[in-house]
Amino acid sequence: MLHSPQLHTAMEEPLDNSKGEVITCKAAVCWAPGEALVMEEIQVAPPQALEVRIRIICTALCHTDVSFWSNRQDNTRYPRIFGHEAVGVESVGENVKDIEEGDLVIPVFMPHCTECVDCKSTESNMCARLESKIAGLMTIDNSARFSISGKPIYHFFGVSSFTEYTVVEVDSVVKIDPMVAPDKVCLLSCGVTTGLGGVWKVGNVEKGSTVAVFGLGTVGMAVAEGARIRGASRIIGVDVKPEKFDIGKKFGVTEFVNPKDHEKPVHQVIKEMTASGVDYSFECTGNKSVIVEAFKSTRNGWGTTVVLGSNRTEIPIDFGELLGGKTIKGSLFGGMKAKIDLPLLVDMHMKKELQLDGFITHEISFPEISKAFELLTKGECLRCIMWMNRTLQ
Amino acid sequence: MLHSPQLHTAMEEPLDNSKGEVITCKAAVCWAPGEALVMEEIQVAPPQALEVRIRIICTALCHTDVSFWSNRQDNTRYPRIFGHEAVGVESVGENVKDIEEGDLVIPVFMPHCTECVDCKSTESNMCARLESKIAGLMTIDNSARFSISGKPIYHFFGVSSFTEYTVVEVDSVVKIDPMVAPDKVCLLSCGVTTGLGGVWKVGNVEKGSTVAVFGLGTVGMAVAEGARIRGASRIIGVDVKPEKFDIGKKFGVTEFVNPKDHEKPVHQVIKEMTASGVDYSFECTGNKSVIVEAFKSTRNGWGTTVVLGSNRTEIPIDFGELLGGKTIKGSLFGGMKAKIDLPLLVDMHMKKELQLDGFITHEISFPEISKAFELLTKGECLRCIMWMNRTLQ
Repeated sequence: MLHSPQLHTAMEEPLDNSKGEVITCKAAVCWAPGEALVMEEIQVAPPQALEVRIRIICTALCHTDVSFWSNRQDNTRYPRIFGHEAVGVESVGENVKDIEEGDLVIPVFMPHCTECVDCKSTESNMCARLESKIAGLMTIDNSARFSISGKPIYHFFGVSSFTEYTVVEVDSVVKIDPMVAPDKVCLLSCGVTTGLGGVWKVGNVEKGSTVAVFGLGTVGMAVAEGARIRGASRIIGVDVKPEKFDIGKKFGVTEFVNPKDHEKPVHQVIKEMTASGVDYSFECTGNKSVIVEAFKSTRNGWGTTVVLGSNRTEIPIDFGELLGGKTIKGSLFGGMKAKIDLPLLVDMHMKKELQLDGFITHEISFPEISKAFELLTKGECLRCIMWMNRTLQ
Repeated sequence: MLHSPQLHTAMEEPLDNSKGEVITCKAAVCWAPGEALVMEEIQVAPPQALEVRIRIICTALCHTDVSFWSNRQDNTRYPRIFGHEAVGVESVGENVKDIEEGDLVIPVFMPHCTECVDCKSTESNMCARLESKIAGLMTIDNSARFSISGKPIYHFFGVSSFTEYTVVEVDSVVKIDPMVAPDKVCLLSCGVTTGLGGVWKVGNVEKGSTVAVFGLGTVGMAVAEGARIRGASRIIGVDVKPEKFDIGKKFGVTEFVNPKDHEKPVHQVIKEMTASGVDYSFECTGNKSVIVEAFKSTRNGWGTTVVLGSNRTEIPIDFGELLGGKTIKGSLFGGMKAKIDLPLLVDMHMKKELQLDGFITHEISFPEISKAFELLTKGECLRCIMWMNRTLQ
């Protein structure tokens, strides 16, 4: 269900006059890990100090949501509202500077408090406040802003966008140009930014470099787009789904390797294609064996592997390969510092230097959220935008 | 058996008039892996094109020798002459430019042909000719220059310094200032350079950084010395031998952790000492579990682990730790490019900016080589210099 791109600006959406009041609205609540989300009427409390309440315009489903949702070992912090890619307009609590009612904002799972050692360093985006987001409760009073019939509902990574209204802390929200299309910038909350940052900040790919991208989902396509913008000479996409190859070309992928087409390991195929291996490989699947292949695909001397996928495992790195002068780097959110880097990405998009349209392969209305889960888990979409207040065929 | 430092320059040593002739001399021959070296009379053929014959002045034993010597799986390429830390004066074969008879040279296991893609890049020291050194034979005619009663003896990594005379290819030899003390620069053939390069080139430690060094052998002490020169604010040495701690202070180590003194893992101890972990950790043991501790000891956001030890195994890297913005880098020879970097190190040593004396804990005469094996394998020495033509008490 792919709709032609339309310009939806935030200004289309009316503001509410519910400041200071509890809002009752629709949300997709997950009652237990792995269970289908249930569309419920929930209560959303007003923002407290250093918090903002956001009306979600549109949101998207990301693999991180699915990964946490499907982890049955992690059965605390339920019921919970997932979702962390979104854009919205909000009302603000006390002591909130820089953000006003009516601003267009992107909520982000990776906070940027601007005050901790990491936020002040140009080298790190690991804000000291990230850990506080894992608890699923607001920091100021250790409680949730969501409830259903008086029972609290946990937040997810400080965002929780699968609801018409959410409350986030100011360090988890970035103000952006209100003239931008919300469905495009919604993508910048996680996957697209992770891929771009992986190339620009973590790998720091130079013009003329050779690049391999393992896994052509949203993160992988964003890696290709980032490498294309940097002027990489070759961008080799690796994916088991051949249909990803045509889509990849739009993002700068120049060659394709389908592991199913080869009896030998992918790293051997890539070494033969490039004589000695690629300068940079990007791992965007979180699959242990894929990381090993990505690492082995880089050349000795300066080959760098950037790990962007996530998993709860150990990566078996070959000692001898590492001693050949190789580097492995990991990051969250592609090393991007939300309040500095997201406005720059929005700016690039507005100037048509950064394409975002191609990432939106499907659009549905929010109550159809189960379709988004189906599409993503089957690998049949990049991003499926869910509109809160818009009915789509 | 520690002798006070003396100035031995190459000029003390007379040159031979054996150019073009086969030389018969003493060498410590290893007949099979793990077996004690046998002092034999061997024949050393004259250098062929692009080769030089070196008279070893002094040599030292390094863990790499011991590691290959003790690997009973690797039972080809025997008999063999080990040794790769040395300094010597030589005679030259055809087509040799830049090196003349009588020059003082350092042979190195890491070639620097200056012509391949890696040698031309500032990013890599992985000379394309490294692989040719593993065969243990000279490239030009695929044969050995050493023989005993007509039977060939294999070379070791293009150096083989446990002999009074050796033949090496020009890409494995670096000309240096003849006024330098040979016992000091002999150290630059491997271990000391590996540690210094690990800090300066691979990690690129900045002034004020916090550093942890795992394993206070020669490489680890050189890491400390390199970090001291760079102005690291804290240099935490980790070793199970408490006597290494006093020695470490001379190389800039500021604090010590003996894992045996703690019930908790070392990384927890270091995180408590530094609030969030060190900026850089250096792994100098080649022990899998130590690498894991070194990696976990670095801080999120920008923590970098440099792996300098070697092993034939896989390193289990925790996925979650890596995603915290951490980097792991490996290298051989500390990323140093022999013909560019070794003369600079010699220069620093001559200007007293780089101390090398402290690395020499023992001196013996060459026929006593078994003592050097005993001292190193028991962890009782940093470097034991073996003098070829000098009798020591």
